[in-house]
Amino acid sequence: MIDSVHSYAFGLGTKNSEGEIIEVYYPKPQIHPSKTEIQRLMEISNLEDTGFIELSDKHIARVRSSIEEGMFSDHTEIFERISQKATIVLMVQIADSSPKSIPEAFLKLHLLSHRLAKPNSINLDGLFGILKNLAWTNQGPIDLMDLPLRQLEARTNGNLLSIQSVDKFPQMANYIVPSGVRIADTSRVRLGAYIGSGTTIMHEGFVNFNAGTLGPAMIEGRISAGVIVSKGSDLGGSSSTMGTLSGGGTELVSVGENCLIGANAGIGFPLADGCTVEAGLYVTAGTKINMLNENGDLVQIAKAKDIRFIKNLTRLK
Amino acid sequence: MIDSVHSYAFGLGTKNSEGEIIEVYYPKPQIHPSKTEIQRLMEISNLEDTGFIELSDKHIARVRSSIEEGMFSDHTEIFERISQKATIVLMVQIADSSPKSIPEAFLKLHLLSHRLAKPNSINLDGLFGILKNLAWTNQGPIDLMDLPLRQLEARTNGNLLSIQSVDKFPQMANYIVPSGVRIADTSRVRLGAYIGSGTTIMHEGFVNFNAGTLGPAMIEGRISAGVIVSKGSDLGGSSSTMGTLSGGGTELVSVGENCLIGANAGIGFPLADGCTVEAGLYVTAGTKINMLNENGDLVQIAKAKDIRFIKNLTRLK
Amino acid sequence: MIDSVHSYAFGLGTKNSEGEIIEVYYPKPQIHPSKTEIQRLMEISNLEDTGFIELSDKHIARVRSSIEEGMFSDHTEIFERISQKATIVLMVQIADSSPKSIPEAFLKLHLLSHRLAKPNSINLDGLFGILKNLAWTNQGPIDLMDLPLRQLEARTNGNLLSIQSVDKFPQMANYIVPSGVRIADTSRVRLGAYIGSGTTIMHEGFVNFNAGTLGPAMIEGRISAGVIVSKGSDLGGSSSTMGTLSGGGTELVSVGENCLIGANAGIGFPLADGCTVEAGLYVTAGTKINMLNENGDLVQIAKAKDIRFIKNLTRLK
Repeated sequence: MIDSVHSYAFGLGTKNSEGEIIEVYYPKPQIHPSKTEIQRLMEISNLEDTGFIELSDKHIARVRSSIEEGMFSDHTEIFERISQKATIVLMVQIADSSPKSIPEAFLKLHLLSHRLAKPNSINLDGLFGILKNLAWTNQGPIDLMDLPLRQLEARTNGNLLSIQSVDKFPQMANYIVPSGVRIADTSRVRLGAYIGSGTTIMHEGFVNFNAGTLGPAMIEGRISAGVIVSKGSDLGGSSSTMGTLSGGGTELVSVGENCLIGANAGIGFPLADGCTVEAGLYVTAGTKINMLNENGDLVQIAKAKDIRFIKNLTRLK
Repeated sequence: MIDSVHSYAFGLGTKNSEGEIIEVYYPKPQIHPSKTEIQRLMEISNLEDTGFIELSDKHIARVRSSIEEGMFSDHTEIFERISQKATIVLMVQIADSSPKSIPEAFLKLHLLSHRLAKPNSINLDGLFGILKNLAWTNQGPIDLMDLPLRQLEARTNGNLLSIQSVDKFPQMANYIVPSGVRIADTSRVRLGAYIGSGTTIMHEGFVNFNAGTLGPAMIEGRISAGVIVSKGSDLGGSSSTMGTLSGGGTELVSVGENCLIGANAGIGFPLADGCTVEAGLYVTAGTKINMLNENGDLVQIAKAKDIRFIKNLTRLK
Repeated sequence: MIDSVHSYAFGLGTKNSEGEIIEVYYPKPQIHPSKTEIQRLMEISNLEDTGFIELSDKHIARVRSSIEEGMFSDHTEIFERISQKATIVLMVQIADSSPKSIPEAFLKLHLLSHRLAKPNSINLDGLFGILKNLAWTNQGPIDLMDLPLRQLEARTNGNLLSIQSVDKFPQMANYIVPSGVRIADTSRVRLGAYIGSGTTIMHEGFVNFNAGTLGPAMIEGRISAGVIVSKGSDLGGSSSTMGTLSGGGTELVSVGENCLIGANAGIGFPLADGCTVEAGLYVTAGTKINMLNENGDLVQIAKAKDIRFIKNLTRLK
């Protein structure tokens, strides 16, 4: 018998023309569920390890009786509304291992955006390879192999198949808008972003998956994969944080509390609390910088990567 | 009796699940209407001060008879098309006071985008607090409290509720496309922007509310709240103007006529007519700069904020 | 008799309220067709020079018989799906001359995005003047003269007419998603872009018409009109390439193979293979630069425009 399960969720999946699940929407993902819930999930699904099943009518009936018994109460609304059209998926993760399927990869991304797991805290190894490159359209996600015919059909019917994105990751807001946030242009925040309460992402802001803000923040710049911005910080328009996926090195960049990275500025090293980087200045890990204190006096000349623990540098220039 | 009214408009409103108006679309806002129109509006609405009413069938009948008499002629098309589904709103502003309601805040924003009032010329005090943070979707604006259920319903019906923005301000183009403009990516121009005829906003351009261009301009950079760009100027890709809302100081930034701010450049002070800022250069108010004349000779070294009245600096570097 | 025809295509057109064709979608544009096909096209259309016709039922019947004979096989799917609603257009280009009509301008743009013609290889003179500035909406392209009424009708019916763009060029992905690409935000790639297989355009990437990448590339910056990026190169976030349409000079900018232009950097001159431009550095044609070799030794100080043939400069700064 299983003592602990990392996470599970019921979701609504999309299939391509070959019947493969290419995407899943989990309205209410659950982390660290109770033993009773786990046992019931195992009974219903016959899963013995991390995996997913598509729910048949029989499965659905058993979930509904469980809901009547008071279990899976977060999923009440889903099971009230299920229609014949929908593919219902149950995904169970026994442990936080590397994702092996599309339903599992999507659950990982949901856990991050629902603030159930912080960036860099769960196993995403191989996630990129698992996800399919899809067209995200006004008719939902479409497999690229099905796209040309779907476009042609829409046009010959006098409609438009409008494509917002061709990407492995959807935009977050079509899955979850976390409480207390504003996102001026939702196309710039990927599912898997972690957006802290009190954060505003302006039109020029961007947040990749497995990255984000931990509290209130004003984001008008780019938060690359793996980068975490702590509360009270401000990323100016078009400012840049180097990621580890492209351009940056192997060390994760981060921004401490109450920092200001000016417009068109950028950093390639972890910035300690209370620091300000002047507008237009790009500080890579190897940049030699003059560090000034509150009075504008020169404190030290150093490489950027060597000052990561020094707080309250009022101006890097 | 009222001698003058600042503005009025009939509009189509959206309500949330609690019956509150969360947004209004005014196809033909009117500024400085005639005394006859005002008197009739007051009679119809029973308003005695700045305010709004929802039109009942009786109200609508009275407006229609007024239209037959030749009044409110700009609103003929609206009243020809009104259906049962729509919430019709009349907003009257006796004076240009600070907005007190959502219908009033939306009228203020419409006046700016319809070019009936220039940026910084009308009272917007408290507007930000009045507006609700909404999800702007392919099904129209949705209150965030109603969003999760609407998303779930769409998915269980095999549809997609697509969210373009989670913001207090909608994009301008869904309300008004002023004459003589191109806007390559409408998600980057907020309602309340003032876009002069002959302006092109390219994909990287951005214009906030209460900001804009007064005539022909090529905008590939960011025009922050309160910033005005005069005719004949060019903001290069990703160029930045500091606003007073975040990062900038208290003084409004502006760009004179026939200026060029290069790609990835920026300014934090008012730029006089005919100046060029080199690509990649960020000039904050305190930056020490070399000023060159047409021949490339050094004219002066000064702080940027002290040169705001000097025209035709051919290159700041 | 005609010996050679440059290109042709059958397409689905959109008309404005005055019956003018304002846009055409060509699912399968053809370049350098066979003599047999040409002769048949001329017989069907009665065209004697470059031009287009709208297909009547008689025309459609003749195309269908040709398809049964084994001709125009790429267009089989279109003619299987044609409905009464659609305006079917045949465009034939005898030679690669400057575009004279909207159907011709759209065919030119399709040839580029279908990778049938490389940027700067076909005649686009006057194309900008031929295209109409349109509203690109969730209901398809709409002439600006028809827009206010369409917006009003949508709202009075309880719907939303959502406008993605007001521009002469549509976004590419609603016409063609070439194989092997990812485009995170499709609003930033115009029809007429040439996107090489293996290219990823991230959210901050942008590609104008008559511009693009020749092979695998990671594009997080802006590729201006006329600019070509060779295989294996990486344009960092918000990086800029100067175009000839605005800001840049008369000489085309290009990026060689295996280059890296850092985040927030930019170039205003052709960059040879294997060069790296440091994050945050804007190098215009006249910038004096220090050229370092692999060991970091200073090789030379020169103006940027004079180093266009020097490969493998590991760091421009």
